[in-house]
Amino acid sequence: MGGNGTTPILADSVRLTGDGVDILDRRVYPFERRWVHCATLEEVAVAIERMVTQSHGPLFAATAGLVLAAREARHAPPGEAAGRLRASGRRLVATRPTNHHIRDAVTAVLAATADGPLSGASGEELLGAVAEAAAAYDAGYREGVASLGRHAADLLDDGARVLTHCWGDAFLIAAVQAAERMGKRLEFVCTETRPYLQGARLTTATLVEMGYEPTLITDGMVPSALADGLADVAMTASDRVTMDGHVVNKVGTLAVALAARAFGAPMYVLAHAPDPLSPGIADVEIEHRDGEEVLHVLGTRTAAHGVRGYYPAFDATPPHLVTRIVTERGAFEPSRVADHFSAPHPAGADPGAALEGPGR
Amino acid sequence: MGGNGTTPILADSVRLTGDGVDILDRRVYPFERRWVHCATLEEVAVAIERMVTQSHGPLFAATAGLVLAAREARHAPPGEAAGRLRASGRRLVATRPTNHHIRDAVTAVLAATADGPLSGASGEELLGAVAEAAAAYDAGYREGVASLGRHAADLLDDGARVLTHCWGDAFLIAAVQAAERMGKRLEFVCTETRPYLQGARLTTATLVEMGYEPTLITDGMVPSALADGLADVAMTASDRVTMDGHVVNKVGTLAVALAARAFGAPMYVLAHAPDPLSPGIADVEIEHRDGEEVLHVLGTRTAAHGVRGYYPAFDATPPHLVTRIVTERGAFEPSRVADHFSAPHPAGADPGAALEGPGR
Repeated sequence: MGGNGTTPILADSVRLTGDGVDILDRRVYPFERRWVHCATLEEVAVAIERMVTQSHGPLFAATAGLVLAAREARHAPPGEAAGRLRASGRRLVATRPTNHHIRDAVTAVLAATADGPLSGASGEELLGAVAEAAAAYDAGYREGVASLGRHAADLLDDGARVLTHCWGDAFLIAAVQAAERMGKRLEFVCTETRPYLQGARLTTATLVEMGYEPTLITDGMVPSALADGLADVAMTASDRVTMDGHVVNKVGTLAVALAARAFGAPMYVLAHAPDPLSPGIADVEIEHRDGEEVLHVLGTRTAAHGVRGYYPAFDATPPHLVTRIVTERGAFEPSRVADHFSAPHPAGADPGAALEGPGR
Repeated sequence: MGGNGTTPILADSVRLTGDGVDILDRRVYPFERRWVHCATLEEVAVAIERMVTQSHGPLFAATAGLVLAAREARHAPPGEAAGRLRASGRRLVATRPTNHHIRDAVTAVLAATADGPLSGASGEELLGAVAEAAAAYDAGYREGVASLGRHAADLLDDGARVLTHCWGDAFLIAAVQAAERMGKRLEFVCTETRPYLQGARLTTATLVEMGYEPTLITDGMVPSALADGLADVAMTASDRVTMDGHVVNKVGTLAVALAARAFGAPMYVLAHAPDPLSPGIADVEIEHRDGEEVLHVLGTRTAAHGVRGYYPAFDATPPHLVTRIVTERGAFEPSRVADHFSAPHPAGADPGAALEGPGR
């Protein structure tokens, strides 16, 4: 089955406006299309913490948040504006610990502005530079994602039945769009991804928007879907890939990888790039969220009383269970994923050396 | 942590009364303690189909339902009563295809009565015989379960952290009670078991009732629970075990087995007995239920529109992923589970040759 060429709403779900940032509320999407308006940097940070947006959303929320912070500091004396911008960056980075999108985006924008040549600039000068750096970072990221999508689509056969877990966001959208341009027909089986149901809500809604009719399964049905031939390849995004090829992604990804291995299905992982600050899995902090979330579904209590919930938000899949890690620069064997950094940049996707923070 | 010696309500959740059968509604338990009153055999059959009761409940509902059917036929002419009872038995067996509890219970009671020496009996004679055979079958089953519980508890170390999937019903209760009598302390980690949440509702509620404080995880967190040391042994019931050691149980059991194998944890499966009518997995019909159930949680829509649900109610775990299959006669290596039938009966657990149907 082919797509309809639509660009889904989640591909553009964080929007900088004249008086703030509008963020599509992923907690209620697709049942409601509610936008949360953030007038200040602090409101953006709280929105990220409360998971108004997640996956790739926080990256765009972070760059837009820095523009808001620069606007707030535009009338500050020279020198002070840069300090306030740095504090805003730290506030954003502190929101969520496992995914490094926010850290990298903040590092890049600050390196090009407040921490760089403009550290003593006036608020007005800084605002112009931050707005430009933020837009360049977003654009560079989107170009890298498009390249990643092409590399991922290269791996998929025409007619592939793709099993997804959680929500691959821009990576998944780019891979689907690239496959469509290659004339490949795809089918999708999506796990619901408890407790937040990103699969049931975001992945399926987006694929429907793009013209597909995805099949939904519960998280425990992955082996059945592979055994029954409903899916023949697994593809997930990642929140962090270590330099030695461990994949940190939404809890349940390891279960998908084990099932894929058991049934001989390839396991492809999409990652912007491995994280140079994470040589091995011991260097990654796995975020544990409130166990109460496991005891509820969409706010309704589902568990007996007297029970405690356990909620590791992510799990770690070892390199030997992953077939390829697809970055914006190519598809790598997990043990060789560090080769990403010696591979050529995708054409047109280099946002410039000034934005190359250590974690990018 | 030890138990409190309580016999939980789910151990006695189908009750034959003077004017019908009262069945605890497992669809709303533990949030409500609602009993569904069935005045006729047909109402019992519908209750089973609608999952008012499940797991071991249908066995007791079936024997009680046959008593209701015999009551309905008590004023029928000799010969006709037996025919009506057989039709009632077929109605019960048709309710759900994968678990063979109902088939075996009906076969045993009919063999002792309508299909046996009483095939030409009066309705009144038949009623007395059916009531006696049903009670004997229930009692024999309960004795077998107690024996199974002892064999299962023998396998668990003092201090074991037991991961459960779905709801092991009488098997789990018996194993926990036997472990308590052996002075073993146990901890429990339970999957919620979507879509019906038997783990979140029935297993945890029963363990709480018995004095434990179980930890709940989503179905995708099984590998994390094992990796983090929250659980060190997996134990599930089964809906059917084939003579060559395949385990058919609630969908997700295969995912548990794959995770247990990956982390070196034993995988124990509780089964009354293997099914002689199922030499191999090809002989088992896997029930597929309405995919709409996957798109909802407790009646609330959780999935985007335009999506279809896929709901295989059970999956099949191959013998090589199972450490031991525990029956009422011992703990067997899966490849040797057919030895169950040459093993001695547990003391006092033989309900008599008259009740030994082919599938019992």
